[in-house]
Amino acid sequence: MKEQLKNIRGSITAPCGFRAAGVFCDIKRLGTGKGSNKGAKRDLALIVSEVPATVAGMFTTNQVCAAPVKLCAERVKKGTAQAIVAYSGNADACTGAQGLRDALAMTQLAAKELHLPAAHVLVGSTGRIGMSLPMTNVKRGIAEAASMLGQAPEHAAAVAEAIMTSDTQPKQIAVEFELSGRTVRIGGVCKGAGMIQPGLSGTRARPPAAPNARPPRGPHATMLCFLTTDAAIEAGTLQAALQEAVANSFNRITVDGDMSTNDTVLALANGLAGNRRLRAMSRNASVAGADLARFQSALNQVAVELAQMIVRDGEGVSRFVTVRVAGAKTFADADAAARAVANSALVKTSWHGGDPNWGRIIGALGYSPAKVVEEKVDIGYSAPGSRQVLYSLQRGQASQATFKALCAAVDAKEFDLHINLNLGNASARIYAADLTEAYVDFNKGDVSDPASLGG
Amino acid sequence: MKEQLKNIRGSITAPCGFRAAGVFCDIKRLGTGKGSNKGAKRDLALIVSEVPATVAGMFTTNQVCAAPVKLCAERVKKGTAQAIVAYSGNADACTGAQGLRDALAMTQLAAKELHLPAAHVLVGSTGRIGMSLPMTNVKRGIAEAASMLGQAPEHAAAVAEAIMTSDTQPKQIAVEFELSGRTVRIGGVCKGAGMIQPGLSGTRARPPAAPNARPPRGPHATMLCFLTTDAAIEAGTLQAALQEAVANSFNRITVDGDMSTNDTVLALANGLAGNRRLRAMSRNASVAGADLARFQSALNQVAVELAQMIVRDGEGVSRFVTVRVAGAKTFADADAAARAVANSALVKTSWHGGDPNWGRIIGALGYSPAKVVEEKVDIGYSAPGSRQVLYSLQRGQASQATFKALCAAVDAKEFDLHINLNLGNASARIYAADLTEAYVDFNKGDVSDPASLGG
Repeated sequence: MKEQLKNIRGSITAPCGFRAAGVFCDIKRLGTGKGSNKGAKRDLALIVSEVPATVAGMFTTNQVCAAPVKLCAERVKKGTAQAIVAYSGNADACTGAQGLRDALAMTQLAAKELHLPAAHVLVGSTGRIGMSLPMTNVKRGIAEAASMLGQAPEHAAAVAEAIMTSDTQPKQIAVEFELSGRTVRIGGVCKGAGMIQPGLSGTRARPPAAPNARPPRGPHATMLCFLTTDAAIEAGTLQAALQEAVANSFNRITVDGDMSTNDTVLALANGLAGNRRLRAMSRNASVAGADLARFQSALNQVAVELAQMIVRDGEGVSRFVTVRVAGAKTFADADAAARAVANSALVKTSWHGGDPNWGRIIGALGYSPAKVVEEKVDIGYSAPGSRQVLYSLQRGQASQATFKALCAAVDAKEFDLHINLNLGNASARIYAADLTEAYVDFNKGDVSDPASLGG
Repeated sequence: MKEQLKNIRGSITAPCGFRAAGVFCDIKRLGTGKGSNKGAKRDLALIVSEVPATVAGMFTTNQVCAAPVKLCAERVKKGTAQAIVAYSGNADACTGAQGLRDALAMTQLAAKELHLPAAHVLVGSTGRIGMSLPMTNVKRGIAEAASMLGQAPEHAAAVAEAIMTSDTQPKQIAVEFELSGRTVRIGGVCKGAGMIQPGLSGTRARPPAAPNARPPRGPHATMLCFLTTDAAIEAGTLQAALQEAVANSFNRITVDGDMSTNDTVLALANGLAGNRRLRAMSRNASVAGADLARFQSALNQVAVELAQMIVRDGEGVSRFVTVRVAGAKTFADADAAARAVANSALVKTSWHGGDPNWGRIIGALGYSPAKVVEEKVDIGYSAPGSRQVLYSLQRGQASQATFKALCAAVDAKEFDLHINLNLGNASARIYAADLTEAYVDFNKGDVSDPASLGG
C-alpha cells in the first residue's frame, strides 16, 4: 500500500472540510499565579469539521484519569462529533466534580461559538495534575480560537504548537491516497515528551492482562494525538481501525515507562472525500475490503510516524532505539521481554553512553516475565529497519564481533536492537529511548516555582 | 525483643568460631587486560567456620543466573557448609559450562587450602557478566586468603571491602542477644549499589506471580549478603528464618528496579554458642518457640539494617525514601502500588529535586496493577518511622498543607512516604531511592574502557 501513499504539506487541515486555530490564553500562569508555559507560545486549540463527523477514541488505562478523558470516553461511544478543544498547561486531572464541570463547560463554550450541539464537542488536555482550570482565560481562548479558524497549514501548525508541553518541536503529518478513484487524506498532530508509556484502550476498561504481561505504564507530560480524515467511514469501523493503528504505534512506545492520566487519541472522519463509505462487513465485501485495507494501512503509517516523533523528542532523549524481540513463545512474552529491556534503567543509561553491553540486556530479559533460556538468546544491532544484524551474543555466547564494531553500532543516534529468544514464533517491537542526565535534570523540577512542577 | 538486642563491634567474625580474610588478586584487571576494581582495594574473600555449620540460602529469581548461584542453590539443599569464597569484579554469569567448572574449581581450591570437603564450600560473585574468570589469580587469592584468616574485626572488614563494586563504603553489622542464658551473636556483611531490586527465593524456582503483582525486577552490581551466627539451629528452621528475614528486607528494596543475575544471601550457623538447638517444631514447643522468635527478631533486624545500607549507598543516591502503602485490598496490591511508586522515573526524579508533587505519585498508583480509587487516596510525608504525617492529598483532594511545608518534608535526606488507598487492610513497604544525574553518569559507562562496563 505504501507506494500509493503520498506525504503532503500540513496536517489536520489537509483533509477537506477541517479548520483549526491555536491561541495563547495563559492557562498555566493563571492557574498558579506565576510561571509560563515552557516553550509553547500557544496553549489552546480548536479543531472543527464543517460537517458532523464519525469519531473514534482511545484513552489512557490509568485508573486515575483526567476529566476530559472521562467526558470523551462517553461521548465517543455515540459515534459522532464535530469539534475538539485541546489545551496545555493544566491536566484537569484529580480535580473532582469541578474538573468535570469545567470540561463540560468548555464543550458548551465551544459549541456556542461554533453553533454546534455541545455533545459533538470533545476535549483533550495535558499539563499539571490537581490544579483547577482558569475558566475565564479558557473562555477567552475558545472565543478567540473560534474567530481565527482556518484551513491553511499555519492554522494546523498552531494547533500542534498549542498542545506542546515539554516537547521541543511540534509534531504533525498529512498523507494522501486513493480509494476507488477518490482522493482521501489523513492528517494528524500529537505531543508527548515525558510520562510516556501509553496503554490506550477504546473502552477505558482495563484490558484483561495477559497472564504474564507487565502492566502498561505511562506519561506525565501526556501523549495527545488528534487525527482528521475526509474519508467516509462508519463509526464502528473507524474505532476498530484506530484500535489497530494505536496498538501498533502509541501503545508501542516508551520514553520513561510512566503512564499518564491524560493520554488521548481522537480521530474525526467527515466523509467529504466522497469515497464509498467504509465499513468492516460491507455487502460488497471485496471492494470495501480493499479500500478498508488501504485506509488502515495509511492510518497505521500516520500513527506510527507520529508515535516515533514522540519518542525522538522525549525529554532529554539522545538516542532512539527500536527494540525488536523475536522467537518468543507468545506475543505476551515478546511484549514483556521488549518492555523489560526498553524500561531498564541500566540498559537505557548504557544506550546513552554508547555502550554495547549485552550483560544488562540479558539480565533484563532474565527478570522479565517472559520465558527466557540463557543458552538460546541472540542479541544484535542493525541500522534502523535493516536486516544486516551485527550480533554481540549468539545462543548465549559472546560473538566474534569486535568491541569497536559493536560500539560503532550503538553510537548511531538511531539503531535497532534485535533480540531472538529462539523459543517460538511470536515477536514484538517497542520504540524506546535512552535515559540521560538531561531527563533527570528536567524532571527534578524547580521547587522555587510550583508552576514548573508537572503533574 | 529489640531491647534485648545489642549492637556489637565487627561483623561476620563476631560470632564464635568464624574466621575471615579479604585479599586483592586483581580479578577485574586480568579478566579484561586493563582497568582496575573501582574503589575496592580487595576483591576476594574467605569466610570459614571452625566446625561444619548449618546453612541456608536465598538466590536471585532472574532466569539468567550466575554459575555460583546455580552451584550454591544445589549445595545449600544439603543443609551443611563450612566456608564461603566471595569475589568481585567478575559475575561468572553467562559463562556457560566453563563458568560452572570455574565455580566448582574454586570450591575445590578453597577446600584443599582449608582441609574441608569441597561440597561444604559455597561461592558468591559480583561484577561483569559474560567474562571468563582469571583462575590463576583466583587460585593465588584463595591461597593467600586461607593463610590470612583471622577473627579480629579487621578481618571481617576486609571481607566487606572485598565484595564491594560500585559501593562507596563497606556494609557490616553484628548483634548479640541471649537465648535461654546463652549469648548468641549474628554478624553480616553485604554489598549492593546498582542493579538492585532483588527478588530472592530459596528454591531458584520463580515463585508463582500474584495475579496482579508486578514481576520483581533487579541488580547489575548485584546484592550479596553473608550472614554468620553461632546459634545452634536446624537447617530447615534456618532456611525458614532466612526466608522470613529476606522477605522483609532485601526483597523490599529497590535502587533502580533492575534485578541482578547474581543476588545471593547465605547464612551459616555453627552452633558454638551452645544454645538449645532451634527447630521450628520442637517437642518443648513453648521454650523453643520463644527462643526461635528471639532469633528470628534478631535476624530480621540484621537483614533490614543491611538492606537499608544498600539503598542508602545506591549508585548516585541522594535521598532514601521508605514508601509505605496501607489500606490496599491485598498484600499483592500493596506491594505492586509501592513498587510502581518506588520505580517511577518521574517520582524518583521529583524526590531528587525535593519536589512534593503528588500528581506523579497518584499517576503511578493509577497505572500500577493495584486497585486504586482516585477519590480515596491519601498521600503524606513523615520523618523516618514517625507517625506524624503531613498530608499533601487526602481522599483525592489536595490538603491544606502549604507548598513550603511540603517542600520541607521532602527536603530531608531521609523521609517516609505514606500512601493510604483506603480500600482494605493490606500494607507493604519498599525502601527506595531517588534517581539522580550521578546515577546516569555512572552507568552510561566509559566505552574507551571495556572493563568499566558492568555486567
